[in-house]
Amino acid sequence: MTFQDVFPIWDKLQPDQQERMLNALVFRLVKKGTILHNGDADCTGLLLVKSGQLRAYMLSAEGREITLYRLFDRDLCLFSASCMMRSIQFEVTIQAEKDTELWVIPAEVYQSIMEESAPVANYTNELMASRFSEVMWLMEQVMWKSMDKRIAAFLLDESAIEGTAVLKITHETIANHLGTHREVVTRLLRYFQSEGAVQLRRGSIELTDLNKLREISG
Amino acid sequence: MTFQDVFPIWDKLQPDQQERMLNALVFRLVKKGTILHNGDADCTGLLLVKSGQLRAYMLSAEGREITLYRLFDRDLCLFSASCMMRSIQFEVTIQAEKDTELWVIPAEVYQSIMEESAPVANYTNELMASRFSEVMWLMEQVMWKSMDKRIAAFLLDESAIEGTAVLKITHETIANHLGTHREVVTRLLRYFQSEGAVQLRRGSIELTDLNKLREISG
Repeated sequence: MTFQDVFPIWDKLQPDQQERMLNALVFRLVKKGTILHNGDADCTGLLLVKSGQLRAYMLSAEGREITLYRLFDRDLCLFSASCMMRSIQFEVTIQAEKDTELWVIPAEVYQSIMEESAPVANYTNELMASRFSEVMWLMEQVMWKSMDKRIAAFLLDESAIEGTAVLKITHETIANHLGTHREVVTRLLRYFQSEGAVQLRRGSIELTDLNKLREISG
Repeated sequence: MTFQDVFPIWDKLQPDQQERMLNALVFRLVKKGTILHNGDADCTGLLLVKSGQLRAYMLSAEGREITLYRLFDRDLCLFSASCMMRSIQFEVTIQAEKDTELWVIPAEVYQSIMEESAPVANYTNELMASRFSEVMWLMEQVMWKSMDKRIAAFLLDESAIEGTAVLKITHETIANHLGTHREVVTRLLRYFQSEGAVQLRRGSIELTDLNKLREISG
């Protein structure tokens, strides 16, 4: 799989734009846990995921976290190049959740192509709208959904992403995804266990009754 | 003030694009309280505010509200034309907070110009990024800030917008802006009063100590 196969609108670029992009690309292999972009750091560039998994999250002044969205194979990450648009006045941190292969497109190269190309600018619009939709979904969850529902939904999502009913995840990590405290997660997971929905073990959580979890998640 | 004076990138449109836009425009006067766009309703079109004030908010299934952002003179509202982009998968409601004069640009006309024009598409990108930034700011508030701080900041904002220290606003309305319950607002306003920061009256709140409110708002 080459960059040309993965970049979503490759065939809408003009030959000279294709060439500028190819010449500027950097391919990277990053280990699980690597911080790829830090809210207030320099402009990292756009990240195009070849394979792996990234997490975009918001970090509070006190070091609390909440996951905004995830990026999977073929996803393009815009907000690691927020310097590109002066109206992006917020900071996200991007971390590799798995070993990840990706291409970095320097912000100034993408920006110069976007400024002259209506198809690239319109594609970027759709990309931003997708992320905006994910954050609005999250806002709805945070505003109107109780934490037990959110944890149940998170466990079901994780299980679908990982393709297993046994999740190797700590209560602390779940708390950081959902923007809450570890104690809250532990208390609710114990309640799920008492309902027979999960089995808690050291360092892992087994989902023992998916229907029960779906019921809790509403 | 004509549409040409107010539309932010008028001089970046080509003559035929200017003509198409002018021919499609609808000028409207709407009364305070009018719902201009309803999440699941038809595509209203983009709204360009000549004068007045609009509020964009999110509505829960149970009828609870939270204000996402406000639109003032010369602001352009994109999400009342969300049909324009398939990636916008969320619904906002737009209400006039004051008597408002505005132009409605039909979504299909704006879309057809945006698809062919890099400047219009890039401008739309900046516009979406601005709103995204406002929603991310709100997410930070909701996640990490206590309600007393948020109410104090809201009162200070309102006072700045209205240019007065006496706000004609109900506790219910404040609750709907901030996505909380009236009882919570009433309890915290009484606390502010006991601290000498506000004076509560029937149907109005007087801000009597702005420094105290700034201190509470953090």
